[in-house]
Amino acid sequence: MQNETKETSQFLRDLGIISVTMVVDETRARQNIREMVRKVQEAGASFRPHFKTHQSAAIGQWFAEEGVTAITVSNLAMAEYFAEFGWTDITLAVLLNPLEIPRLRTLAVYLAEQGGRLGLTIDSQAAALALKKAHLPVEVWVKIDTGYGRSGIVWNDADRLQDVIAALGPQFVPAGLLSHTGHSYQVARASDLQATWDQAFQRMQHARDQLVTNQPLAISLGDTPCCASVENLRGPDELHPGNFVFFDLMQRKIGACHDGQLAAAVACPIVGIYPDQGKIVLHAGAVHLSREFLIDARRESIFGYLGTVQKSSAGMSLGKVLDKAAVVGLSQEHGTVKVSPEDFKMSFSDLEIGDLLLVWPVHSCLSCDNFTSYLTLGGEVLSRR
Amino acid sequence: MQNETKETSQFLRDLGIISVTMVVDETRARQNIREMVRKVQEAGASFRPHFKTHQSAAIGQWFAEEGVTAITVSNLAMAEYFAEFGWTDITLAVLLNPLEIPRLRTLAVYLAEQGGRLGLTIDSQAAALALKKAHLPVEVWVKIDTGYGRSGIVWNDADRLQDVIAALGPQFVPAGLLSHTGHSYQVARASDLQATWDQAFQRMQHARDQLVTNQPLAISLGDTPCCASVENLRGPDELHPGNFVFFDLMQRKIGACHDGQLAAAVACPIVGIYPDQGKIVLHAGAVHLSREFLIDARRESIFGYLGTVQKSSAGMSLGKVLDKAAVVGLSQEHGTVKVSPEDFKMSFSDLEIGDLLLVWPVHSCLSCDNFTSYLTLGGEVLSRR
Repeated sequence: MQNETKETSQFLRDLGIISVTMVVDETRARQNIREMVRKVQEAGASFRPHFKTHQSAAIGQWFAEEGVTAITVSNLAMAEYFAEFGWTDITLAVLLNPLEIPRLRTLAVYLAEQGGRLGLTIDSQAAALALKKAHLPVEVWVKIDTGYGRSGIVWNDADRLQDVIAALGPQFVPAGLLSHTGHSYQVARASDLQATWDQAFQRMQHARDQLVTNQPLAISLGDTPCCASVENLRGPDELHPGNFVFFDLMQRKIGACHDGQLAAAVACPIVGIYPDQGKIVLHAGAVHLSREFLIDARRESIFGYLGTVQKSSAGMSLGKVLDKAAVVGLSQEHGTVKVSPEDFKMSFSDLEIGDLLLVWPVHSCLSCDNFTSYLTLGGEVLSRR
Repeated sequence: MQNETKETSQFLRDLGIISVTMVVDETRARQNIREMVRKVQEAGASFRPHFKTHQSAAIGQWFAEEGVTAITVSNLAMAEYFAEFGWTDITLAVLLNPLEIPRLRTLAVYLAEQGGRLGLTIDSQAAALALKKAHLPVEVWVKIDTGYGRSGIVWNDADRLQDVIAALGPQFVPAGLLSHTGHSYQVARASDLQATWDQAFQRMQHARDQLVTNQPLAISLGDTPCCASVENLRGPDELHPGNFVFFDLMQRKIGACHDGQLAAAVACPIVGIYPDQGKIVLHAGAVHLSREFLIDARRESIFGYLGTVQKSSAGMSLGKVLDKAAVVGLSQEHGTVKVSPEDFKMSFSDLEIGDLLLVWPVHSCLSCDNFTSYLTLGGEVLSRR
């Protein structure tokens, strides 16, 4: 480990990094995209990846190069941003906020003029009536709760579902039912994901089969643990996972990815070193890594593990996860890495202040949201929203 | 509560809010500033408030109007931002990152030209040597760990402290010793804060008294729980708390503020309502509130409590903390508020999607960092870094 972290620091310094920076392994991210495109095709579904993880036009381009034309986003400003960069087929997967109807109209009209469309999600009569009244030129999806317990109509609440469809009226037939199967994050092991997935799809079918409509409704499902791990994704018409582009320690813990798929990590300057405490202090904190945590093998909360870069066939790539070196403390702009004083002596004693450590984030979506750009291992700055 | 939350929503809608927005009560924030200025003066110390909580030039102006001329910041870009807005006496309270020396030099020279100064903190020989070698025109403070355990030289580690001072050499005498007494956040009750404070000051004195220098070193301490609660702040030469400008639920739990001092809350659009589950879903999530949590009376993690606005002598002000209505779930852009179905019926049944709920953040520093501007209750947009 001794040389690995020092070499990693040297590589990051050679990239010109001087303060906390989100680093992206383009080769790995492109592989993750290709692999998901392949899986979705194999399942016979259409692909509408969620762009909330990266929120970057440049990374969007990597998807476009794999044939992706439809995307999911989680707020209106994000939809407007990607529309500016030429994306015309956008679903806003957070439930309709009626206060945004004027701005949604502008966007929907613009996308329609480009030959595209804006998809919105609703789960209430009130939202259905608001949409109908506004005559928005949008495609409507009804959000279903398949077990996550966040938003959406509970899958077997036939009355509420029928009421929403009725409120939309015959002129406004929904395109389908959409669910975020986020309860997949709570499975005990990766082998449980197939059952979670099958159950979610069955619940969506149940919801659809109860409905009296003249038109078949599509089913859209998505979450990275299932989409990345489940062998047989057949069933849904559309899949919309997002996190898989970078993955993270949480996905790794679930078993949804292997270490070689982790594609984003945070380069953090060392500002304090305390060998006798086995402690290194980083100028990188909760406003960079987010306070999302994992419980590690010792049942302690950790906010990240240190990582390395390594030589690969593609040049340099992100490397190992150093499970023994965890970020155990996090305040606004400080991160505290702890190892045993013996490990420190063996593996970290050549580090100095001004060196850069790489930290794998627990939840890449939340960590990425704190940055205004990313840096590739090739030194390219990727702008984002 | 029925009318309170609906009236609060109406007020926020009348302000023109349509999506998640950080709302600031200017009157309360100014009162909080005035009260801290008074306490610091009473203690005979100089005041160098930490600006990392608000990071806003407009709010900085409120401090300036109370006679504040010196500030603390937590990164170089923040220092540069406030320098642009006329602040010339700035301490960067995160340990020196040697990679930033060229940019620090530019800033230090600029501030010196304005008749001001840049203060930096170090806690290692390596940092002392880097500073000496660079001939930076800065004021140096040595960071001491008085019990928090994050960064700084442990208060009774006389050898390391003497080594750092020696490395700086006779041409570079430090201005003083600085400590963030962040362990005050871990006290069991507010009445323990005086002891925490007294101990921290005694430890700083102990550290100073061990040193062989020709020049008396100043002592700078700061943390909001102590500075806000401790009656007798006498001792340190300088105080640098920051969070007190807004306070938050964490400070409230510690007992460092009362409800009438809470000066910032997040207006969140309701996008989902589920009366039979006692659940309301907000389009506001971890990227707005942060995943900082408190353990509530039922020993559950909460990410915020709902709040209200109320009429006051100063017009409208922020209002109550509704302890029974907590944000219990938080994903990237969703917040889940839960109350008992009975409470829902009694207090929330008049709410509709498109209404706005006010959420008190657990940790205002982290939540504010997610916004690019704030809105006052008077409708003024306060820009920030």
